[in-house]
Amino acid sequence: MVRRSFEFAAQANATTRALASLPARQQLLKQHNLALVLRQIASAENLSRAQLAVRTGLTKATVSTLVDSLIEAHLVTERDPERGLVGRPASPLGLNPDGPAGLGVEINVDYVSACVVDLTGAVRWHGTFVSDNRLVRPELVMKKAARLAGRLYEKAENAGLRVVGLGVGVPGLVDFDGVLHRAPNLRGLEGVAVAEVLGEMLGRPLGYLRCDNEANLAALAEHWFGGRDDLSDFVFVSGEIGVGAGIVIGGELFRGVRGLGGELGHVTVDPAGLRCSCGSRGCVETVAGQEALLVAAGLQTGRAAPTGAVDTLVERAQAKDAAALEALERAGRALGVALGAFLNVLDLPSVVLGGLYAQLAPWLVGPVTAELRDRVVNHSWSSIEVVVSSLGSEASVRGAAAISTRRIIDEPTEVLGGSLARS
Amino acid sequence: MVRRSFEFAAQANATTRALASLPARQQLLKQHNLALVLRQIASAENLSRAQLAVRTGLTKATVSTLVDSLIEAHLVTERDPERGLVGRPASPLGLNPDGPAGLGVEINVDYVSACVVDLTGAVRWHGTFVSDNRLVRPELVMKKAARLAGRLYEKAENAGLRVVGLGVGVPGLVDFDGVLHRAPNLRGLEGVAVAEVLGEMLGRPLGYLRCDNEANLAALAEHWFGGRDDLSDFVFVSGEIGVGAGIVIGGELFRGVRGLGGELGHVTVDPAGLRCSCGSRGCVETVAGQEALLVAAGLQTGRAAPTGAVDTLVERAQAKDAAALEALERAGRALGVALGAFLNVLDLPSVVLGGLYAQLAPWLVGPVTAELRDRVVNHSWSSIEVVVSSLGSEASVRGAAAISTRRIIDEPTEVLGGSLARS
Repeated sequence: MVRRSFEFAAQANATTRALASLPARQQLLKQHNLALVLRQIASAENLSRAQLAVRTGLTKATVSTLVDSLIEAHLVTERDPERGLVGRPASPLGLNPDGPAGLGVEINVDYVSACVVDLTGAVRWHGTFVSDNRLVRPELVMKKAARLAGRLYEKAENAGLRVVGLGVGVPGLVDFDGVLHRAPNLRGLEGVAVAEVLGEMLGRPLGYLRCDNEANLAALAEHWFGGRDDLSDFVFVSGEIGVGAGIVIGGELFRGVRGLGGELGHVTVDPAGLRCSCGSRGCVETVAGQEALLVAAGLQTGRAAPTGAVDTLVERAQAKDAAALEALERAGRALGVALGAFLNVLDLPSVVLGGLYAQLAPWLVGPVTAELRDRVVNHSWSSIEVVVSSLGSEASVRGAAAISTRRIIDEPTEVLGGSLARS
Repeated sequence: MVRRSFEFAAQANATTRALASLPARQQLLKQHNLALVLRQIASAENLSRAQLAVRTGLTKATVSTLVDSLIEAHLVTERDPERGLVGRPASPLGLNPDGPAGLGVEINVDYVSACVVDLTGAVRWHGTFVSDNRLVRPELVMKKAARLAGRLYEKAENAGLRVVGLGVGVPGLVDFDGVLHRAPNLRGLEGVAVAEVLGEMLGRPLGYLRCDNEANLAALAEHWFGGRDDLSDFVFVSGEIGVGAGIVIGGELFRGVRGLGGELGHVTVDPAGLRCSCGSRGCVETVAGQEALLVAAGLQTGRAAPTGAVDTLVERAQAKDAAALEALERAGRALGVALGAFLNVLDLPSVVLGGLYAQLAPWLVGPVTAELRDRVVNHSWSSIEVVVSSLGSEASVRGAAAISTRRIIDEPTEVLGGSLARS
């Protein structure tokens, strides 16, 4: 591993020196073109150098120099030429699965999970353990998270991957400085800069630290890995014990004017409704959150859900159990009302149901769609589609892990000249 | 008037020629600097040329040349020097009240109004007539609007002002092409490109035509003329028969992703509530719209409000009439719930109560603020102020009139080289 790190550093330093010897304007141009070429390689599979030249409008010679830099920096690989029937063989390019990797952790209300993704976005290692974190002291929750993350970090290291950053997802409002401001369902961690603290507890080299709302990270994962190229304006609804949302506009997270927007879970759907953990009444969470759903379906009485309760809910709904169907119908209606407010404000074309709601989608899509049709005033002109996330419950932790690697794909020269250049 | 128009044209053509003789890059620079200087003159009163040079960072000589161009184009005036006690006299600059003017029309549910603003933003002529436009054929509504607008146009013309554009405010969803898509309270005009049609009916030269939602225009007026320099991120709530909202972020209108966002009036505050004109149930309009308010206070039984009913509501509230106070309390609570959803999405710092709600503010600010405090989940970190519009019921029509003149202030070279250059 030491040797490997040194290799990275030496390559990066060479590139830094090469860049430094160019006049400022040329340097900027090279940085720009490096990013352009890398984004193209990331966005399509198996491009050849020649195809890259066509797509970017750069000369073949320039493309070749840039691709060589990216290969040297371990960001890109080139497969052996596949000899076609006609013409010269093309060597297909791709992101390097042995290049820099990202570590992600999700600390949610009733579980902690972690994963490592490689530069291609593939999840290489993953681990979860379930426990009601509301009943555990916050230091212990952090310790569990650090232990799990440490195990995965080691696995990555042993496989020769360099972990370049840590992303952490939490179920609450996170400010621009990465401090978890408010988490009605996980109060112990309020006021904590979770990624910084976890990074210190890990005690390993990590270039980039970032904490964000779990629904925001799941929304980014959906955008990056959801397999739908046209999905760049949508609200991702994350069903857990809390109800979260991540808004993506033009492929970027929309966080509201001061950074604490996008809060779906505490939109009021019934002003006189049940008291919510946030102190308000009739929030969508009090009808459509996991606990509210399980209680209404007769599957939960105490604070902690019985193991497998969500699977039982699915089974009962499949068996047309009246209480289960009614709970799901009510939850879907409440989600539709709250999403109606969001879409009346934002005029977005797509709603993605994720987390718990992906699993429950067969019973939710109908009522959600019906409420949106009734309640979004521009519905007749601005069509709205309700789709289901294919990423499952891993979306958030995968997004957390991938923010470090996506950052490299967006700004490769920061890596070539920066974080990988440490000796 | 012919002579005056010719003067404008001659000056503008001279400027166009002067610009055209410069190399492209220098032309762009001059355009940029002209706009910069004009915006400075517009944003502060009584600047001198020397102060302008300090503020813009341009040389005094450059500033003087640009100011001369702006004076020649009738955009700026320079008062006679005021001799101070010390130093050389300064000649204070200001926008020219005899420069280009804007015509505005508001077609709302129960009135039509129009006004002319000059380049300083001052309302020079104003007219309104009240009638329930839901009971009148849309062609007649348009005719009334055209007649009123025509009268004001003539007044401006007779006073030597040149009207350079027409803005029209309507109570509904307007798309980017200026077509009124949906107006639940004024269905007759749905599908009409209102500004284009009205412009044709006027039959007068009008350089710029624009139709927009009445609340959007009122929000712009609040931003431009509300007298608070720090107000650039806010939601303006327009209380009329309908309930509208205009969202301003960073001094610009926010229209949502596809242009039909910002709809406050049809956010659900009670899913099982009254049927709304839009077809949904329990929209904020069914509790806080003018009709709902007056009916609840016992001041309206039929469809049309008795003349002066809103004033009577104010008097009754002042006299602590129980029905009036309860109606206002309920309306304020409903507005707070709907605004809570907006602010949970957008995390905006300010709410401005306008239209009807400005007059009723003494009874609304309390319940609105209380609901926001309870229902906006980031409230403790992101403070929210609820303020009252000072522009009264003229806000929207004033904004409609001023979009043409503000456009000139933002892009003076379009005028110098474009619309005023017609012979």
